Amino acid sequence: MTAEIVSIGDELLIGQVINTNASWIGEKLTEASITVRRVTIVGDNDSNILEAFRSAFSHNDIIIVTGGLGPTHDDITRDCVATFFDTSLVLNILVLNDIKERFARFNRPVTKLNEDQALVPECAQIIRNMNGTAPGYWINKENKVFIVMPGVPREMKAMMEDFVLPGLKELKRDDTHYLKQANILTTGIPESTLFEKLGNLDELLEGAKLAFLPNYLGVRLRITVSGQEENEVADRLNEIEQKIRSRVGRYIYGKDAETLSGVVGRLLKERNLRISVAESCTGGNIANEITNHSGSSDYFERGVVAYSNAAKVEILNVDEDTLLEYGAVSKQTVEEMARGIRAISGSDIGLAISGILGPTGATNEKPVGTVYVGYADSGQVFSKEFHFGDDRLVNKQRATQAALELLRRALLGISFEP
Amino acid sequence: MTAEIVSIGDELLIGQVINTNASWIGEKLTEASITVRRVTIVGDNDSNILEAFRSAFSHNDIIIVTGGLGPTHDDITRDCVATFFDTSLVLNILVLNDIKERFARFNRPVTKLNEDQALVPECAQIIRNMNGTAPGYWINKENKVFIVMPGVPREMKAMMEDFVLPGLKELKRDDTHYLKQANILTTGIPESTLFEKLGNLDELLEGAKLAFLPNYLGVRLRITVSGQEENEVADRLNEIEQKIRSRVGRYIYGKDAETLSGVVGRLLKERNLRISVAESCTGGNIANEITNHSGSSDYFERGVVAYSNAAKVEILNVDEDTLLEYGAVSKQTVEEMARGIRAISGSDIGLAISGILGPTGATNEKPVGTVYVGYADSGQVFSKEFHFGDDRLVNKQRATQAALELLRRALLGISFEP
Repeated sequence: MTAEIVSIGDELLIGQVINTNASWIGEKLTEASITVRRVTIVGDNDSNILEAFRSAFSHNDIIIVTGGLGPTHDDITRDCVATFFDTSLVLNILVLNDIKERFARFNRPVTKLNEDQALVPECAQIIRNMNGTAPGYWINKENKVFIVMPGVPREMKAMMEDFVLPGLKELKRDDTHYLKQANILTTGIPESTLFEKLGNLDELLEGAKLAFLPNYLGVRLRITVSGQEENEVADRLNEIEQKIRSRVGRYIYGKDAETLSGVVGRLLKERNLRISVAESCTGGNIANEITNHSGSSDYFERGVVAYSNAAKVEILNVDEDTLLEYGAVSKQTVEEMARGIRAISGSDIGLAISGILGPTGATNEKPVGTVYVGYADSGQVFSKEFHFGDDRLVNKQRATQAALELLRRALLGISFEP
Repeated sequence: MTAEIVSIGDELLIGQVINTNASWIGEKLTEASITVRRVTIVGDNDSNILEAFRSAFSHNDIIIVTGGLGPTHDDITRDCVATFFDTSLVLNILVLNDIKERFARFNRPVTKLNEDQALVPECAQIIRNMNGTAPGYWINKENKVFIVMPGVPREMKAMMEDFVLPGLKELKRDDTHYLKQANILTTGIPESTLFEKLGNLDELLEGAKLAFLPNYLGVRLRITVSGQEENEVADRLNEIEQKIRSRVGRYIYGKDAETLSGVVGRLLKERNLRISVAESCTGGNIANEITNHSGSSDYFERGVVAYSNAAKVEILNVDEDTLLEYGAVSKQTVEEMARGIRAISGSDIGLAISGILGPTGATNEKPVGTVYVGYADSGQVFSKEFHFGDDRLVNKQRATQAALELLRRALLGISFEP
C-alpha cells in the first residue's frame, strides 16, 4: 500500500511554518508498513489543491490531507473535498453537538462561523476532534482511502492515533508485505570510520538495507527489512541490529526516538546517582536538556551558568590564579569547575564545560570551537578537549552533546580512545 | 513567476529528517517576489523523481531541486536530470579541480567515487560548491529555469545566496509585479483579542492581506502587499505596519526574524544593564536562550538552575521558612529567588522562575502549568502568576517566553494589564 501526504497552507510554502506534520505522519505510516510515496504542499488555492488531490488519488491507495479546515475565508479544503468527490455539504448533528459542548465548556457563545464547521461533505465518515472544532473526514472510494484532518498538530495527532492509524492497520490485515525499520543512534564517530568498522555490509545485511544518516550530532543507522512473514522480518531486523552492536557498540547511545539526555538520565536513575552541572559556553543548555525529562529532579540537583569569571570564583570556588594562568577555557579551569559544582552541591557527579563558541572570543592558541568538558566523581577528575566548527548555535548543540556523551561513557566505563 | 521546490530523499518521506530546506528556499523565493506554487517531496526512486520533474516543469517557470547528489548508489538525482533533459554526462574539468583541491586541503586521497562527481549533465551550467564536493546545476530550457543543488543545508544555502538568488533576481528585472511581506511578532495576547483590538480590517488593509499565524508562543501577523511599483508597495507595507503598531504596539516584541531573547538582549545592552537569572522549572532554558546571542557576555552575568530546595537556600539565600510556608512554587519564593540572584551576582536585574511543568508535581491548589516569574531591580521586586497547559516541553517554552516578555515589558515600562 502506498500513501501520499498533501499539506495545505500558504504559510508552509513561504517558509513561515515548517511542515512537521508531514514528517510526523510519514513516520507513523512507515511504522505501520505503509510506503509514503510523496509529500505535496500546496497553498490555499482551489485549483492547486484540486490538482494535488487528483494526482495523489490516481497514484496511491491512501491519501492524507491536512490543513485548511478552519472557520475563516482562507480555509477552503472542505469545499475542495466536496468538489473533488462531487458531493454536497450536509449538517452533521453530532459535530454540531461537539462544537456546542466545547464552547459551553469554555463559557463562550457559539458563533455562526463555528456552527458552519458542522457542515461536512456528505460522502465522508466523520473523525471527531476532541481538541478543536473542525472535524476530520474519512472517505472510501474505489478501494482507496482519502483522509482529511486539521493542520493544528495537536488536533491532527490525536485523530491519527485514535482513529486513522487503527483504521489503516485494519485495512492492512489482508496485505502480506511487511516492512520494519530500526534506527541505531551513534555519536562521537565520523561516518567514514563507522563505515569501516562495520566491515562487509553485504554479508551483514543479506539483502536488507542500511542507510547512513549523518548530522552534526552523530550518525544514525537506519536498518530496513521487508518480507512476507511478520515474525521473520522482526527476527532479521533484530539479528542485524545485534551484529551492528557487536561491531560498533561503544558509539551507540540509543535507538529510535531515544535522546542522549534521556538515556543518561535513565542511567543516573538506575544507579541512584545525582548530578550537578557547571556551564560556561553552553549557557544552561546541558541543564536544560537534562531537565526536559519528567522525573529529572530525582537525579539532577542543580546547575550553575558561570558565564562571568566572578561566578566561577564565587559560586564554584575556581581558584583565581587558575583563571589568570590558564584562562577560563582550559583543562585546569574546567576540572576545577567540575570539582567545585560537585562539592557545593553534594552530588555524586559534577559535570562542567567551558569553551569558545564564536563568532568572537578566539585567541591564537584557542580558535573558535575549542571546548573543554570536565568530569568529577568520588574516584576521579578528568577532562577532554574538543574542537568544533564556527557556527555558534551548532557549536552549542555539539558541545552539549559531547558533554552528555562523556557522561554516558563515564557512567558505563567505556573508554574514550577510538 | 511561479516556482516549485522538489525535495528528494527517502529520509524526508519517512519523517526522519524534517524538510527545513524547502522552508528556507520558500522564504527566500517569497522575499524575491517569486510565488512558490508547490513543494513536492519524493524518495530516491527514479520513476517518482521523473514524474515530479515533469509535473513541476509543466506548471512553473522555476524549478528548484535539492538532494540526491551525493557519491553513493542511493544518489540518483543526477542521472534523473540527464534522463529528463535527454542529455549525457560529461567530465567537467573545473569541478574535478575543485574536488581535487578540496581533498588536498584536507590531506585526503581522491577516490574514484569522488572523481565521478565531476561528471555532470552536458546541458547544465555548473554552480560551484564551496562547502562540499557535489556541484549544482542551472539549466535553461523553454524559457524556464531548472536548478539542482545538494541537500546538505550548508552547501545548498551558500549556492542559493551566492549564485541562484542573484541569477533569479536578474531574470525578474523585466517582471513588473512586486510582492512584499512583513511579519509583526506579538506575544501575551490571544488571537481573538488581537483581532478585536485591530478594529476594522478592510479599512486598515485597503486591499492588502493580513494573516493571523498563532502558535503557543504568540501570534504572528503577516502583512502582504503587492503592486506594480516597488516603492509604492514598500510605502503601503510600512503604513499598514505603523497602523498596527499604533493599535497593539505593547504586545509587539519584534519583526520578521527577530527573537524575543535577541530583542531583550539588545535592550539590556543599549541600557548598559547586566542581568542574572535563577531558574527552577525551566531548568536553564532562559539562560540558554539569552546566551544564544553572540556578545551576550556583555549583559548576562550568571545563571543558577536551583532545581532542588537546597540549591535555592544555599546559593540564592531563599529563606527556608518561605519554602516551608508557601512552597517552592509561589509568589514569595520566586521573589526571594529574584532578589537573591541579583544580590549575589551584583547584577542590575535579577529574573527568577519557579513552576510545575508536569506531568507530575501538581497539588490541589497548584495544577500542572502553574508558573511564577519574579523580577528584581534597584527600584522594585514583583512577580506574576501564569497558567499554561499540560505538555511539559511546551510549558518549558511558554514559561521561558513569559519570563523574557516580562523582562521586556519591565525594561520598556509597559504595563502588564490588558
